[in-house]
Amino acid sequence: MTVKLLALYTKPDDVEAFLAHYNDVHMPLIAKVPGLQKAVVNRIDKALMGQAPYFLIAELHFADQAAFDAGMASAENRAAGKDLMSFARDLVTLVVASEQP
Amino acid sequence: MTVKLLALYTKPDDVEAFLAHYNDVHMPLIAKVPGLQKAVVNRIDKALMGQAPYFLIAELHFADQAAFDAGMASAENRAAGKDLMSFARDLVTLVVASEQP
Repeated sequence: MTVKLLALYTKPDDVEAFLAHYNDVHMPLIAKVPGLQKAVVNRIDKALMGQAPYFLIAELHFADQAAFDAGMASAENRAAGKDLMSFARDLVTLVVASEQP
Repeated sequence: MTVKLLALYTKPDDVEAFLAHYNDVHMPLIAKVPGLQKAVVNRIDKALMGQAPYFLIAELHFADQAAFDAGMASAENRAAGKDLMSFARDLVTLVVASEQP
């Protein structure tokens, strides 16, 4: 069963600066995490009811819980996590999700 | 570019009753929506920092904006939306997202 790290970002004050760092620095660090099968970035366009609570939702896919755990424990993930805290500490919520069969 | 409807559900009081309706009634209605490429249901297991804000995040994938708009405007989607309001009105947030290339 695919296990995913979901990163939910609220809207940054400076969208352009955020996306520049996200695309040019953060995602290349994420791409190095061992066991990462796929990274999907969803830009939230609008809410169908009420206000959209997020600006971006990113999904990091791992084959199973063991691959997820190994990826999270890696030096590469620590580097990506350190970078995340440098530019999105107040914007991001991280949750672990399992894709239902 | 894939366009997705994301349904973010907070935790219901009665998880078992919620999931029974969701799996046995709601998802079969969703499956009938024209143009739906894929439905993915992610169960949120835990937060890595703080509290997990959601219990379930479902993704409905459409090939592009035109397919999304046609799906949303369909009678099948109106039926699914009516059902959604019957069991999850106070739990669900719906947003439109575009998967970044």
